[in-house]
Amino acid sequence: MKRVLVTGGTGFIGRHVVPHLVELDYEVHAVGARDVDLLDGKARRDLLAAIRPSHLLHLAWYVPPGKYWTSLENVRWLKASLDLLMEFAAQGGKRVVTAGTCAEYSWEGDGICREDTTPLEPASLYGASKDSLRRMQEKMAEQLGISAAWGRIFFPYGPGEPEGRLVPSVIRSVLAGEPARCSHGRQIRDFIYVDDLAKAFTVLLESDFQGSVNVGTGAGVTIAEVAAAAAKAVGRPDLLQLGVLPTRVGEPDRLVADVSRLKSLGFEPRWTLSEAMAATASWWRDLPAV
Amino acid sequence: MKRVLVTGGTGFIGRHVVPHLVELDYEVHAVGARDVDLLDGKARRDLLAAIRPSHLLHLAWYVPPGKYWTSLENVRWLKASLDLLMEFAAQGGKRVVTAGTCAEYSWEGDGICREDTTPLEPASLYGASKDSLRRMQEKMAEQLGISAAWGRIFFPYGPGEPEGRLVPSVIRSVLAGEPARCSHGRQIRDFIYVDDLAKAFTVLLESDFQGSVNVGTGAGVTIAEVAAAAAKAVGRPDLLQLGVLPTRVGEPDRLVADVSRLKSLGFEPRWTLSEAMAATASWWRDLPAV
Repeated sequence: MKRVLVTGGTGFIGRHVVPHLVELDYEVHAVGARDVDLLDGKARRDLLAAIRPSHLLHLAWYVPPGKYWTSLENVRWLKASLDLLMEFAAQGGKRVVTAGTCAEYSWEGDGICREDTTPLEPASLYGASKDSLRRMQEKMAEQLGISAAWGRIFFPYGPGEPEGRLVPSVIRSVLAGEPARCSHGRQIRDFIYVDDLAKAFTVLLESDFQGSVNVGTGAGVTIAEVAAAAAKAVGRPDLLQLGVLPTRVGEPDRLVADVSRLKSLGFEPRWTLSEAMAATASWWRDLPAV
Repeated sequence: MKRVLVTGGTGFIGRHVVPHLVELDYEVHAVGARDVDLLDGKARRDLLAAIRPSHLLHLAWYVPPGKYWTSLENVRWLKASLDLLMEFAAQGGKRVVTAGTCAEYSWEGDGICREDTTPLEPASLYGASKDSLRRMQEKMAEQLGISAAWGRIFFPYGPGEPEGRLVPSVIRSVLAGEPARCSHGRQIRDFIYVDDLAKAFTVLLESDFQGSVNVGTGAGVTIAEVAAAAAKAVGRPDLLQLGVLPTRVGEPDRLVADVSRLKSLGFEPRWTLSEAMAATASWWRDLPAV
């Protein structure tokens, strides 16, 4: 019996992972912040004792847009995640996959992030916290006798994305008939549709690969292309205004995943940008107004 | 008023640091495991509230010889240390120096460890835990508004060293009139006398340097030379038996600190190997038999 605990299971990524896990015959226990406070030791231990998962997909973290880069909440999530790994192993868990981030990499290089060679020198407290958890998970797994992998997430978008981020803000502005104001948007990023990302995490969980894997498409697109696709999916490309906002300081020109390792595990993205953006726009359009 | 909390203050390094701090007009609060359990959140917070230190010298860790490389106690010390940093800042602390280790470095290189260029890829859970704390401390300090440095300790020896380690085991065997059995001892290490090490940490605490600093002498000596100096200091060089024990797997040929950064802060070691070993042998000789 494969029984998986998905933390962050009601979040942006978690809700897309669940159907893929069900399809793979997992007994799925997806918990969100409203179900259990994972920072509360007793609540966390009670959860593990009740479920006794064989697999753990640890997606939960502190992620409010704009705040999470520097918040000391990252320290609490690091600590709780270390405990979670210990407790997962103690009750008989076998295989864990944890969500990492492209923010673990140094962004000073050529813009292609390679697991083997790109320096892991995060600039932010968020990146350092994830990087520390990854380093600890790798060494703890040896002592705990569990199998562990780490998926470094690039730039996901799709239904359920937090509102303050690029794609939701363009779509919501345009849906309201208002101009979508952006920077020049020439920065290249590895955007991945959240359903592809979710699929990649299930592939990683099912594999016996141990170590870090970039989770992206390997194809860079400009922020302008993504914003244009979003505005077009809503049917109002005319409302997109590029170049009217300043570019954020410290933004690198390019951040793209080398995905050869992910490919070697048998994953290929299935969604094109326009198909994925059509599905995303449709989700926002159908969302009941509050 | 400079008021310093020294954790691990009754340990091998801590007890040598205290007199140097007193000399520098610190009000010194040195606590050991018998005084306060730093893994106990309430005890730790009560301690900080009672002392309200302006400075923190965080030397405490889990260090039983032979066990500390792989023990999951490292995880508990990482977590407690993250909390300690937060709590130190919250009560008004300004400057922290934490004990790191040469085990944070990859040992695959040329054997000279340089802060700027040697990869930080620890092989052990101990090294990964210290490395993670260092990465977190650096980024947390920015958010907490404190000044933070990190001293990477190489191979200390001297009075009070835990018994299972090289110098105490040679001295104690020879003092008992028994042969001191060693490996070939051709491995080169950066041995530093604990009084020099203690002085270096006070120099680091007094400076406003932020970042990592190797704490060694910069001079490599072979393990055989150190063992010979120990046996000679007791007056029984004839009892040293080199080459009768196997070398540990994974032991690198050379591990020496590049100390240019430490030197630039104004530190120079003062003890020669033979003087330091004489003082060490004398301490063991005078130790009351249990």
